Amino acid sequence: MERSVKLHGHWASLFVHRVQLALHLKGVKYEFIEEDLDNKSSSLLLYNPVYKKVPVLVHGDCPVAESLVILRYVDDVWKDNPIMPVDDPYERAMVSFWCHFVDNKLFKSFGAAIRASGEEQAKAIEEFHQNLMFLEQKLAEKGSKFFGGEKIDMLDIVIGCGSHWFKAVEELSGLKLIDPILFPHFLEWKQNFIESQEVKEVIPPFEKLTDYAKSIYKKILGHDNN
Amino acid sequence: MERSVKLHGHWASLFVHRVQLALHLKGVKYEFIEEDLDNKSSSLLLYNPVYKKVPVLVHGDCPVAESLVILRYVDDVWKDNPIMPVDDPYERAMVSFWCHFVDNKLFKSFGAAIRASGEEQAKAIEEFHQNLMFLEQKLAEKGSKFFGGEKIDMLDIVIGCGSHWFKAVEELSGLKLIDPILFPHFLEWKQNFIESQEVKEVIPPFEKLTDYAKSIYKKILGHDNN
Repeated sequence: MERSVKLHGHWASLFVHRVQLALHLKGVKYEFIEEDLDNKSSSLLLYNPVYKKVPVLVHGDCPVAESLVILRYVDDVWKDNPIMPVDDPYERAMVSFWCHFVDNKLFKSFGAAIRASGEEQAKAIEEFHQNLMFLEQKLAEKGSKFFGGEKIDMLDIVIGCGSHWFKAVEELSGLKLIDPILFPHFLEWKQNFIESQEVKEVIPPFEKLTDYAKSIYKKILGHDNN
Repeated sequence: MERSVKLHGHWASLFVHRVQLALHLKGVKYEFIEEDLDNKSSSLLLYNPVYKKVPVLVHGDCPVAESLVILRYVDDVWKDNPIMPVDDPYERAMVSFWCHFVDNKLFKSFGAAIRASGEEQAKAIEEFHQNLMFLEQKLAEKGSKFFGGEKIDMLDIVIGCGSHWFKAVEELSGLKLIDPILFPHFLEWKQNFIESQEVKEVIPPFEKLTDYAKSIYKKILGHDNN
């Protein structure tokens, strides 16, 4: 008997979007359980006692937490439309390296940049730019539509789901985070990602996510009464 | 022709030990390149421009950085004595989840505990204990010598290489970090790890590493002139 697939998530979570997109690319049907993040379900807390966060994928009675771990699990179980290189261990290691880089370096420097102000912010933005430049160079070298070539791979998923945040912060703060002169390939890639059919089919509209990110960003800035 | 295997490392780095132990378990011969961490080689900076850190494994002319990425690469390339479960994607996901947990939660809470003081320190130690309890429970449930059963797996490697730090901090600070009443299985596991033949063959003596960790800890505390 086919095991059930459930995903505990939140409609606006970029980490949940990663899993939704991966499942969608592979044509896996699943039940989506929307969590109230202010009042998480007892199932979620049971399934993810360490982080108490979405996403959690529950396959049969086996829960998996942490989006990068889930993505590899999904690719491991459902072989259709692989999101990791199949034949070459080195290529697999590189995709894994850059996915962790996005979470551990790129998004962290972005988070620091939007929370800081003055000189500290300028320093954080510089670090964010240095990090983003690694991806810009990768895209320039590849010359392809996506990091995965002509189709979306795990790195596209990981950096793509969340890219609405850059626009939200630019629009609200007036900061120039991604200069088209410096990052032409990244901006082109971002557009390719947003406009791709598979992304449109499963991820909420980019404008809606951008608005939601703005509302979170206002809270971070402490002027959510504006 | 067999591709060369080189490891840029430092004799006392727990992250480097992880890779050394994995290569040793698989019987892979390699050249070790000792780095001066105050004056890193141009090769290291070229191979790991993102983090500029050891370990870097160079396989032929392909560099891989970040110890967890390297471990999976090593397991992927050299199939003998697997350090990840071979047959079950779920078991693989769990090992991956707990390895990242060690770096992202356990070691971070430990680092916070040894840097803080007073009330902040008590809080950090409590968080460290909560994290360690997940591993204690895992070992109690398994009832085996190692996380990997009767042999060392990737999680054993990841938590084992670095466990000398607990002793170093306890001896120097007088803090009781790992109470034998609360963590009997973890302490037994730690002893099994330290005493295992494969570990002894490749990792510097536990006492020597403990002394080195103490010297680093003194610097952290800012009384390295004592």
